[in-house]
Amino acid sequence: MADQCTRGSADIPDSIPALRWEEPPEGPVLVLLDQTRLPGEESELACTDAPALVEAIRTLAVRGAPLLGIAGAYGVALAAARGFDVADAARMLAAARPTAVNLARGVRRAQEAHAAAAAAGGDERAAAAAALAAAQALHREDAEGSRRMAREGLALLDELVPGGQHRLLTHCNTGALVSGGEGTAFAVALAAHREGKLRRLWVDETRPLLQGARLTAYEAARHGMPYTLLTDSAAGSLFAAGEVDAVLIGADRIAADGSVANKVGSYPLAVLARYHHVPFIVVAPVTTIDMDTPDGAAIEVEQRSGHEVTEAISPSGRGVGGEAGGGVPIAPLGAQAYNPAFDVTPPELVTAVVTEWGVVSPVTEGALEQLCARSRQVSMS
Amino acid sequence: MADQCTRGSADIPDSIPALRWEEPPEGPVLVLLDQTRLPGEESELACTDAPALVEAIRTLAVRGAPLLGIAGAYGVALAAARGFDVADAARMLAAARPTAVNLARGVRRAQEAHAAAAAAGGDERAAAAAALAAAQALHREDAEGSRRMAREGLALLDELVPGGQHRLLTHCNTGALVSGGEGTAFAVALAAHREGKLRRLWVDETRPLLQGARLTAYEAARHGMPYTLLTDSAAGSLFAAGEVDAVLIGADRIAADGSVANKVGSYPLAVLARYHHVPFIVVAPVTTIDMDTPDGAAIEVEQRSGHEVTEAISPSGRGVGGEAGGGVPIAPLGAQAYNPAFDVTPPELVTAVVTEWGVVSPVTEGALEQLCARSRQVSMS
Repeated sequence: MADQCTRGSADIPDSIPALRWEEPPEGPVLVLLDQTRLPGEESELACTDAPALVEAIRTLAVRGAPLLGIAGAYGVALAAARGFDVADAARMLAAARPTAVNLARGVRRAQEAHAAAAAAGGDERAAAAAALAAAQALHREDAEGSRRMAREGLALLDELVPGGQHRLLTHCNTGALVSGGEGTAFAVALAAHREGKLRRLWVDETRPLLQGARLTAYEAARHGMPYTLLTDSAAGSLFAAGEVDAVLIGADRIAADGSVANKVGSYPLAVLARYHHVPFIVVAPVTTIDMDTPDGAAIEVEQRSGHEVTEAISPSGRGVGGEAGGGVPIAPLGAQAYNPAFDVTPPELVTAVVTEWGVVSPVTEGALEQLCARSRQVSMS
Repeated sequence: MADQCTRGSADIPDSIPALRWEEPPEGPVLVLLDQTRLPGEESELACTDAPALVEAIRTLAVRGAPLLGIAGAYGVALAAARGFDVADAARMLAAARPTAVNLARGVRRAQEAHAAAAAAGGDERAAAAAALAAAQALHREDAEGSRRMAREGLALLDELVPGGQHRLLTHCNTGALVSGGEGTAFAVALAAHREGKLRRLWVDETRPLLQGARLTAYEAARHGMPYTLLTDSAAGSLFAAGEVDAVLIGADRIAADGSVANKVGSYPLAVLARYHHVPFIVVAPVTTIDMDTPDGAAIEVEQRSGHEVTEAISPSGRGVGGEAGGGVPIAPLGAQAYNPAFDVTPPELVTAVVTEWGVVSPVTEGALEQLCARSRQVSMS
């Protein structure tokens, strides 16, 4: 295969923010980059209330565990600033997608800040300001967390795969589009690229919604990274050929025992990585670790519509044939499909969990608990 | 998941032939069911010369290892009957796709019959008739081989997975659309269905060209089999949930050491099957075994255009947007893709090879050699 790499044009900015808060005269809005339309179209959605944001979360216009947390917090701030019922908005937002723990956490953080300000005698405006401040703090912390995960992850890579020139395989999308900063797993690959240590980023297309082909390839191209796209099942051939030095993925929830829920297709990669003695590295902020979920079996995995599998959907989110709603059938009419959004990788297949508070390896309940305790202590100090 | 099954309508015939030879007044033609247009459209292509058939093979209008052998033999018969240079046609046809050994074998068989008739003093017409007879014999033998593979495969399943009610996972398409009969791996699942022993056929969609979603689902629906479609990487979740009793796949070439080249995505399934202690069964006619290819490393794997990965192609074979040629981009413009058509599974991951001449398990060079010798003896007796 030619070692030709695809680079973004020099006059295109490296990244565009996945969301931002704006306050036009009409009242505050949460502006989202509509990820369902990438890479063909860079268009924005402006949410003025929680139901609009819930819809954007469900259709995956905004997605990715850390970003969902930030979006959820801003959603609460939006409801508060516009005088809607904050508890209602929080309930609705937290339930929009069940697997990512960060969403419910972000929502709770803004809601608690709102309640605390109200309890301290603040008026509605002060309570709304407190919710917004909480969302903005989470946003900033996430950006800072990205930087720290990238540093920790790259140090781990250099240790596990000496000599640099890493060939990294990733699944789904874990870059700036899922984060207040540069992301999780993708941020590690980007850090390697910036230090001249990335030989190749192998990008799984990530069926059914093609987040790898549409979003990770888009981010990699913008940064001028050497990347190659592949169908998810072609990863097997790369492992067999010795072309993968490490797998880097994100996480939507990490249970107390270290089981990792992530985009469907992560578990087969973990099994392949084990079979080929290749490190399987999970990169996620500490907020992804949920000590209240004891193990993998306790993680609720979202089942999505079979249409995502039986119909071709264009990057514009509509049918590729141009019909509004409903895609072009690629299977017989009436075909039933099994379409879990996530799968669960048991801790024994995870080489390491990289967080902004350090690396856990081997992955055990005790080590995760210590890490969470350390992060809480530092946050409070 | 609901246990609802998708059934074909009762007035639709169970299957339509993937190819047939016809002799209208204008001269003989090889008529192909255009598989690139399924399941939306059942249209046919009439080939009047070898270049047209080569084009149909390259675009996958006709595909599948056993059927390629039959098509190749008919292609030689067509060239002979229409007065083209038979050696030229044979060379062109044998090289149309490199991985499936059956194609070159079918071509050689018809070419040798043609040469033998000519050497025995036959005129052009007699030699052409001999080539056609060879193609028709191969076609009939393949149909009979399907029946025998189905019987052998079902007996093996009943032995490996006692109690019936099999949940079988398959990849790509291996039914009547790849065969003169009912196929290879699919024929085993169909036999189980007919005996009331099929609980569920899990159908991998098989990216990038979706032969599972388009073709296997189409065949399963016509036969009223209980089937469910899934993205290739969702198979991992099924294994983890204990929902797969056996994997059944076909083969494009089996090397002397038992390495199996099959549609890309087969090898990851073999690794998953091993990790979950699930039998991984390869069903293929003896002609797929190539004792001249010593091992997996010696198998040439066809690399196909990256556009199959970077663009959405409709079942009609054209861009899903309706453009002639070129699909709708689903990745950034200029994205490079790695797109091997096949992968290679080493013999240690293959539980059994089921052929029309019996089952080889464990898969060793000696056992394959014995099987081939037995098949040659019986054929000659």
